[in-house]
Amino acid sequence: MGWFFKTQRVIYKPVEEVDLSPDSDEVYLRANVKAPRMAGFLIKIAAWILESRILGAMLVYILKGENLIHKLVSFAELKEPPVYVPYHPWKDLKEQEAKCIPSELPPSEKAQHAVDCLPLCSDVIINTQQPTFRRWTIQDYSRAYISGETTPLVVAKSFLDALHASSTPPLKMSFFISYNAEDILRQATESTLRYERGEPISVLDGVPIAVKDEIDSKPYQTTGGTKWLHKLRHCTDDACCVKHLRSCGAIIVGKTNMHELGVGTSGINPHYGATRNPYDPSKVTGGSSSGSAAVVSAGLCPVALGVDGGGSVRIPASLCGVIGFKPTFGRVSHSGVLPLNWTVGMVGILAGTVEDALIVYAAISGHHPSNQPTILPPKINLPLLKSEKSMSRFKIAKYKEWFNDCSDDIRSCCNQMLDLICKHYGWETVDVTLPEIEVMRLAHYLTIGSECNASIRPHLEKMDVAELGCDARVALRIYGAFNSREYLNAQRIRNRQMHFYKHILERADFIVIPTTGVTAYPIMEDALKYGDFDYINGAALVRYQIAGNFLGLPAVTVPVGYDKSGMPIGLQFIGRPWSESTLLHIAFAVQVLSIQSYRKPKVFYNLLSKKEEP
Amino acid sequence: MGWFFKTQRVIYKPVEEVDLSPDSDEVYLRANVKAPRMAGFLIKIAAWILESRILGAMLVYILKGENLIHKLVSFAELKEPPVYVPYHPWKDLKEQEAKCIPSELPPSEKAQHAVDCLPLCSDVIINTQQPTFRRWTIQDYSRAYISGETTPLVVAKSFLDALHASSTPPLKMSFFISYNAEDILRQATESTLRYERGEPISVLDGVPIAVKDEIDSKPYQTTGGTKWLHKLRHCTDDACCVKHLRSCGAIIVGKTNMHELGVGTSGINPHYGATRNPYDPSKVTGGSSSGSAAVVSAGLCPVALGVDGGGSVRIPASLCGVIGFKPTFGRVSHSGVLPLNWTVGMVGILAGTVEDALIVYAAISGHHPSNQPTILPPKINLPLLKSEKSMSRFKIAKYKEWFNDCSDDIRSCCNQMLDLICKHYGWETVDVTLPEIEVMRLAHYLTIGSECNASIRPHLEKMDVAELGCDARVALRIYGAFNSREYLNAQRIRNRQMHFYKHILERADFIVIPTTGVTAYPIMEDALKYGDFDYINGAALVRYQIAGNFLGLPAVTVPVGYDKSGMPIGLQFIGRPWSESTLLHIAFAVQVLSIQSYRKPKVFYNLLSKKEEP
Repeated sequence: MGWFFKTQRVIYKPVEEVDLSPDSDEVYLRANVKAPRMAGFLIKIAAWILESRILGAMLVYILKGENLIHKLVSFAELKEPPVYVPYHPWKDLKEQEAKCIPSELPPSEKAQHAVDCLPLCSDVIINTQQPTFRRWTIQDYSRAYISGETTPLVVAKSFLDALHASSTPPLKMSFFISYNAEDILRQATESTLRYERGEPISVLDGVPIAVKDEIDSKPYQTTGGTKWLHKLRHCTDDACCVKHLRSCGAIIVGKTNMHELGVGTSGINPHYGATRNPYDPSKVTGGSSSGSAAVVSAGLCPVALGVDGGGSVRIPASLCGVIGFKPTFGRVSHSGVLPLNWTVGMVGILAGTVEDALIVYAAISGHHPSNQPTILPPKINLPLLKSEKSMSRFKIAKYKEWFNDCSDDIRSCCNQMLDLICKHYGWETVDVTLPEIEVMRLAHYLTIGSECNASIRPHLEKMDVAELGCDARVALRIYGAFNSREYLNAQRIRNRQMHFYKHILERADFIVIPTTGVTAYPIMEDALKYGDFDYINGAALVRYQIAGNFLGLPAVTVPVGYDKSGMPIGLQFIGRPWSESTLLHIAFAVQVLSIQSYRKPKVFYNLLSKKEEP
Repeated sequence: MGWFFKTQRVIYKPVEEVDLSPDSDEVYLRANVKAPRMAGFLIKIAAWILESRILGAMLVYILKGENLIHKLVSFAELKEPPVYVPYHPWKDLKEQEAKCIPSELPPSEKAQHAVDCLPLCSDVIINTQQPTFRRWTIQDYSRAYISGETTPLVVAKSFLDALHASSTPPLKMSFFISYNAEDILRQATESTLRYERGEPISVLDGVPIAVKDEIDSKPYQTTGGTKWLHKLRHCTDDACCVKHLRSCGAIIVGKTNMHELGVGTSGINPHYGATRNPYDPSKVTGGSSSGSAAVVSAGLCPVALGVDGGGSVRIPASLCGVIGFKPTFGRVSHSGVLPLNWTVGMVGILAGTVEDALIVYAAISGHHPSNQPTILPPKINLPLLKSEKSMSRFKIAKYKEWFNDCSDDIRSCCNQMLDLICKHYGWETVDVTLPEIEVMRLAHYLTIGSECNASIRPHLEKMDVAELGCDARVALRIYGAFNSREYLNAQRIRNRQMHFYKHILERADFIVIPTTGVTAYPIMEDALKYGDFDYINGAALVRYQIAGNFLGLPAVTVPVGYDKSGMPIGLQFIGRPWSESTLLHIAFAVQVLSIQSYRKPKVFYNLLSKKEEP
């Protein structure tokens, strides 16, 4: 039946190139209606045939084709996202202890405002004890550059050495899909010259930042973790968020590994290798932003960008023991991000500390030039992290059955930390019920799957499926099997959940849950060649992610401990729309309590330490 | 294979009934994952099987069932609409010569504000000539009641006599699906008493208003033009817009006939009869709000409510020679309106004059108690129709090829009227190109079809399809055949069109087109029994409707002439979102120029004229 499914298709020009003047060469197409008028007995027969399963399906298919639906809609190639935005009106709740800045400020000024919100070094540490281990922060880099202790060029060279060491046997960590030493050294040289002139652009000048290979960043192609997507879709410009970071002077050090097309959460990529967990290289990192989490965990960058469509930032952050922050839907422009979905994904930040997440958040937020219609508040709030003493008394919603549906280690670790938080800050937990959690997981799966299919299918139809890993093939086959009723019902379930969360979050400041149901698990040998379709571990990893994506709510994960085998555990907070400031405040408060117990990963590179320099 | 498609389904409680307290009886459902972990050769086999057409489809179906997707999502019964709203940010353009009122005023006060915007009687008529024919207006009724010339009770009795005369042979106009003489007389008696006490509630007190049988209105069931929907979905309360009219004192006189489920535009209903055109009872009225247009045309009510999902108000208004007004998406609450779709439909107004449309528009607009998320401006503008002399100089966008794609009579009539308007008011036409009009028609069809299917299918699955007319059966079979990719691509096309219209409407005040491509055509005998599937006339009727629905733009049709056989012709204007005030201003200006040529329908009842009283 292959011929039957081959069909003409229209490739639409991008809207901005369409001429709307009277002299336009756009053709007026008269309605091409190919359906006979039917009434009386004829229409009765027609109804009967159409309602028969096989003959009916064939007739509908022919009718769709004859009436140009296939050519103009079904199989058309379009650049534009769907017009919808997931939206629910919320009462405008004022954020406390926040600094309000206009979203149209230049990124470097926004980053500076963020720095002004940070505590002095000594404030971070409670009880004046030094933590046993901590990663270098953006401010550590900035201070080292300003003091002349090191230069961006020296750091870039250390980075390249570390990258080489991590990429080659015996480690083969598979952190990156692509990096260009020449490009990195060029950026580092320019930054070094700026520091020599005493003119660094911002606190981010010379700081190495890695970018998930789902986000456009010159001079690299954007593979999305595949072997073929970049051959059909060329990267011609930096994504909006990457532009913002560059304008702050950051060094973009390459494109990190990811689960192929973001269809899974293990981070095992059959083409570019399974990203390995710095805390135990025999275990997964989680995904899909696997490389971005791993490079931050391993000390290669203080911060990396990821994209979170179903926990893809928070899962690997949690499994690799770093901060994972997903802002409210629409807060960061998605211009230049692979359109693997349209209504659930958001650029997210992986960072060693909450302070670094805040600086990068400030730099990349707001100011949308894209054609995606969004409802973005004109102001951005930044949390004043000056002192944990002055913190508000927050109310924390907790749904016990859900909170406890995880491994024993995670359950006891997260409950202990929550008790400690409440005791230390005087916060209060409120018991609630969140209904239909599993229903929401399915509805989200159906939504992200349908959207990924609609976006990617025209490309897939031009290539051999064998170029895909088998787990992506299985996933895409299922993604393509949803009908419009299923998609629409999923959106109705979304409406229900928005009501539930709105109700809860009007009575509590945020919701607390573990970040994942399991910690990092071993990479099986048989998964390396074709990929790994492990829906059971997958379901445990995404268990706590969905509200952040399906309802567009901001969410953050903070490392709070380790399981018996030493793998990191994350605690997650979900806030109200646009309440990133409050959420980062909370994450900071948790970090203050847990930072002393942070452990050093087995694979770790110290780019600022002189003794590791070449 | 019947058994294969029988499946369990969940019937969800309405959100507001779900208990979110810790003692809730909502069950926490653990992820029920039924998929083996697959890797290595196994996953390669799985991918291969899934990608085979028949076996793959069966396996996907089984996987969906086993993983509860069918039960919890696909076949679930939900009350909530999808969470999306069609939305595009527009520059806020101030409306001129408008009176701004808060949307939360009581309907009766809003109606009074509208009356204050109206011209004195004499201002309406240009050149001081009396029109040869005009319908009684809301103000005519109100003045006659206040002066004691007649009473609501007398009018109600005349109404019932006229309704009887029109329903029985030889006419059999099939205007109404249901009416209750007792209920009408009760309302009329109450209204009469209010006038006797000198305490009418508003200008609408005692005015007969008919409601399309798609809008809930006690004591009637809402059939949606079917023989069965009301058996499964009970009408327990007035729709929000009906409540508003009642609170103004209006008399709801019954539920008007409509195309079954709004799936067609002819107005031929196999169960309740083909609504007949008052200008020629052998011809169609157009639909789907067929009865509402016909009763206004025939003088039975000055105003009726309809619902416009694909021209369903404007088409019959145009074919029956009355005003048809569809406000911006979301302007009128859809609470209590049959959810035949969620993102394209809007309650609309059919009226004898622009002034009456304005009064009812003011009474039913704003103030949403529903759970449909909408982006509604907090203020409503009402046009100051005091004098056509002071009118702004508007810019009218015209796309010639589209404008002229209609019958010869319509083309020459509409072009002549447009020339006259420009000459008389000094308005200016701007030639433009509107691309992909036919693509938008298909994308809209796919959207309204998919949404209707998702909404109605759970009901259909409980009944015998033979209870449906054959044209509805054919339509619903096609509506059910769209996949999620087709639905999503339709929404991407919607995004493109929003860009096009935004660009044009930032350069012109409105777009002008005929309302339909053909005028009312004969009702064929063979259509009466099973319905009529006439996609070609259908396409000509909807040709100019889609932007109003798919892009949510407000639109109005004004009668401007007649074809050679004496059937009415409408001219249509499409405005910017929320620019109803400007649009009604324009409609009024056109009415001033065309009202003198209005002709009396063959079937017409004069409820205020004493000589026709019993």
